[in-house]
Amino acid sequence: LVSAMAEASHCSTKGLPLVRNISELPQDNYGRGGFSHVTVAGSFMHGMKEVEVWLQTFAPRSGTPIHRHSCEEVFVVLKGSGTLYLASSSHEKHPGKPQEFRIYSNSTFHVPVNDVHQVWNTNEHEDLQVLAVISRPPAKVFIYEDWFMPHTAARLKFPYYWDEHCFEVPPKDEL
Amino acid sequence: LVSAMAEASHCSTKGLPLVRNISELPQDNYGRGGFSHVTVAGSFMHGMKEVEVWLQTFAPRSGTPIHRHSCEEVFVVLKGSGTLYLASSSHEKHPGKPQEFRIYSNSTFHVPVNDVHQVWNTNEHEDLQVLAVISRPPAKVFIYEDWFMPHTAARLKFPYYWDEHCFEVPPKDEL
Ligand SMILES: [Zn+2]
Ligand SMILES: [Zn+2]
Repeated sequence: LVSAMAEASHCSTKGLPLVRNISELPQDNYGRGGFSHVTVAGSFMHGMKEVEVWLQTFAPRSGTPIHRHSCEEVFVVLKGSGTLYLASSSHEKHPGKPQEFRIYSNSTFHVPVNDVHQVWNTNEHEDLQVLAVISRPPAKVFIYEDWFMPHTAARLKFPYYWDEHCFEVPPKDEL
Repeated sequence: LVSAMAEASHCSTKGLPLVRNISELPQDNYGRGGFSHVTVAGSFMHGMKEVEVWLQTFAPRSGTPIHRHSCEEVFVVLKGSGTLYLASSSHEKHPGKPQEFRIYSNSTFHVPVNDVHQVWNTNEHEDLQVLAVISRPPAKVFIYEDWFMPHTAARLKFPYYWDEHCFEVPPKDEL
């Protein structure tokens, strides 16, 4: 019960202090090894309607799924280094072999809307930590098993992992 | 001419590398002492349509103007400490005496839409550095001379300081 209440309290915008210590915010790996996610400012947790900010840490040899979304996304790399894999949207039926971009501490990049991408910690020696900003929360993310999966087979994961426990199914019309 | 060309090149999304070193991005104080602004990802400079990210540094005893905007804004404090002054939107004709919130390294806060606010470095000993995220760029900012200026007298500063040199007046209809 206490844990259920604690969880519920993560989903309420009520009673939260206006200024929050990021290191005291709820943090989870959502079942992914070597991963840590904190919703710094979120739709479900903090009532944001137009932008959402995440702090994410990836251990060596971990990263995001291969995915796409129609919202804008900006990354600021706070620590470590890694690789952005990016398949620019084309008229192909699948993403295809992605371009590779080196990302590094104090670098920034944004992902063009609907481009299939993956951020990966390719540095054996250090965690990769990023701030990610998305528009139009909550995130609607399509996930690919690999770079040659057809766009039409990508799976919509909604609500996304960190939004799941706060997502409320709209109440049924009781008529 | 060279300077005009350099300036123009800051305003074009063409030819920019996808991954950019933040410390190599154009940085300016826009005539304000003790201030430094970098557009990390911007509407005019990088073609962002839904979010914009700024890196700002305020020396002791400096900060933002007293202002409001109808976009969302999220701050992440990277270094230093200071004060958020916030006058929640009320039915008064002017903002009135603001509430004060201590902000500090690794803290985050967002500014409720249309609330009049000011971020100030009230720490004598250290710079205050923040990442600021806004929605719906470019920023449309109303500036107040003081906390008792009527809302109706606040001055719209558009384009905002760092957008000015990239702002193009829409071409006149030549009919
Ligand atoms: Zn993404
Ligand atoms: Zn503001």
